[in-house]
Amino acid sequence: MTPDDIAHARVKESFDRQGMLRHLGVELLQAKVGMVELRLPYSDLVTQQQGGYHGGAMGTLADVAAGYAGLTVAPAGSEVATVEYKINFLAAFQGGHLHATGQAVRAGKRIIVTTAMVTHRSPEGQVRDCAIMQQTLACVAKTY
Amino acid sequence: MTPDDIAHARVKESFDRQGMLRHLGVELLQAKVGMVELRLPYSDLVTQQQGGYHGGAMGTLADVAAGYAGLTVAPAGSEVATVEYKINFLAAFQGGHLHATGQAVRAGKRIIVTTAMVTHRSPEGQVRDCAIMQQTLACVAKTY
Amino acid sequence: MTPDDIAHARVKESFDRQGMLRHLGVELLQAKVGMVELRLPYSDLVTQQQGGYHGGAMGTLADVAAGYAGLTVAPAGSEVATVEYKINFLAAFQGGHLHATGQAVRAGKRIIVTTAMVTHRSPEGQVRDCAIMQQTLACVAKTY
Amino acid sequence: MTPDDIAHARVKESFDRQGMLRHLGVELLQAKVGMVELRLPYSDLVTQQQGGYHGGAMGTLADVAAGYAGLTVAPAGSEVATVEYKINFLAAFQGGHLHATGQAVRAGKRIIVTTAMVTHRSPEGQVRDCAIMQQTLACVAKTY
Repeated sequence: MTPDDIAHARVKESFDRQGMLRHLGVELLQAKVGMVELRLPYSDLVTQQQGGYHGGAMGTLADVAAGYAGLTVAPAGSEVATVEYKINFLAAFQGGHLHATGQAVRAGKRIIVTTAMVTHRSPEGQVRDCAIMQQTLACVAKTY
Repeated sequence: MTPDDIAHARVKESFDRQGMLRHLGVELLQAKVGMVELRLPYSDLVTQQQGGYHGGAMGTLADVAAGYAGLTVAPAGSEVATVEYKINFLAAFQGGHLHATGQAVRAGKRIIVTTAMVTHRSPEGQVRDCAIMQQTLACVAKTY
Repeated sequence: MTPDDIAHARVKESFDRQGMLRHLGVELLQAKVGMVELRLPYSDLVTQQQGGYHGGAMGTLADVAAGYAGLTVAPAGSEVATVEYKINFLAAFQGGHLHATGQAVRAGKRIIVTTAMVTHRSPEGQVRDCAIMQQTLACVAKTY
Repeated sequence: MTPDDIAHARVKESFDRQGMLRHLGVELLQAKVGMVELRLPYSDLVTQQQGGYHGGAMGTLADVAAGYAGLTVAPAGSEVATVEYKINFLAAFQGGHLHATGQAVRAGKRIIVTTAMVTHRSPEGQVRDCAIMQQTLACVAKTY
């Protein structure tokens, strides 16, 4: 297996165990060393009071994309836990789907720093910035 | 109506329109001027890969509690939009329910700053800190 | 020595080594277990382009107050390093002095979470909120 | 004047009024539409208790670089005020100088979102990541 294959396998194993993500309809598009891409289609499960994507859905998607990007660079045998994140919401969207790209910025033995960019993709293929996140992860022992 | 009654009515009207919150099982406990309390029971809808509450669920709960606290102090006729938030996760929990208290720290005409504290309540009634958030809201025209 | 005496001694030893703080005129008012108070008088050293306190000065004061609050609850023999912080600026002020209170929210063995509130104190004694911060610290080996 | 010339003039006019920056030794390297670069040489004015750059100095540099990047895309006649920022410290450094690049991510009429990357440059020319920031600005009336 290449390093990118190993990265994908680590992310996939964790992703398949996530009740909330499966429930919301999040899909894993890509996972390689230092970078993960996710997709979330529009549905009634992820909307707020005005019919747009809920901030909680955007936050969850960004948190997970960045967290998994961190997982791909974490020491072998360890998992990552989100210490904190900060997210800015740039614009509100309805329909289409959300696309999140998580990237590792710095991989320490104990602390990993990541970022995520969430874009909206309309059914016609238009891409617009939706949210931007900066995140801190801690490396922890894998318990499953 | 007292100011607290008005605050509650503003929050309730918005809360009832939120698809994602209803779906996850979030309940509105209290809303008064400058403070809102929410509750989220444990279920398969809000878990991550190790069976604990998902960060996305804690983030959503905190975001909404603080956002509604902001709404109670926003100028009449306006709504609030989340500009950004930053959340620290303090510990992982399973079972019981999550309780979030949002509070307004500063209410400007255009920008409102809030905080939220999320605690875990076990079935036996034990209360422990779960997450802490700091948030920025913008006052926007109400469109519904 | 009481626990608060030990807390004060730990903070004082570090504080006296800080070139930038001494330079800006920061004073240590109080340090006890889980809480530290600092003071920064107004001067040309801490202003921005409109004559108000510079965000960098408020950020530094909050960072240090919260960091030292964390130090007072860190394991014996360890120091703390700031992993990250997030600060909201609530209002602009001139003259008088700034007062910062740092508090430990959660003390783990590896990660400590803190908050700080910065207020402005006018020469007449009026107290107004100036900035609020949320911070993550890592416990590291003491090297001096 | 080209748009980049105008951007530079806006930044320069504000920069020259900043007491704290002049005092710490911050230099303006470049300012064009959407991007600003600053430089801060190592000195006793910007150190912490272990002789490294103080977090407050890194935070100030990042805050200003990103804030000025925002100023270059703010509506004509307006200034920007920092609503909040969040900064992760990636590594500690001594000597050489710090280099900060601020970039505008989204320019609204009322809210501007920016990022900054701070790197350390050693006397031998080695470049290493030092800090990363995400910031929210509000557009405000220019008062000088």
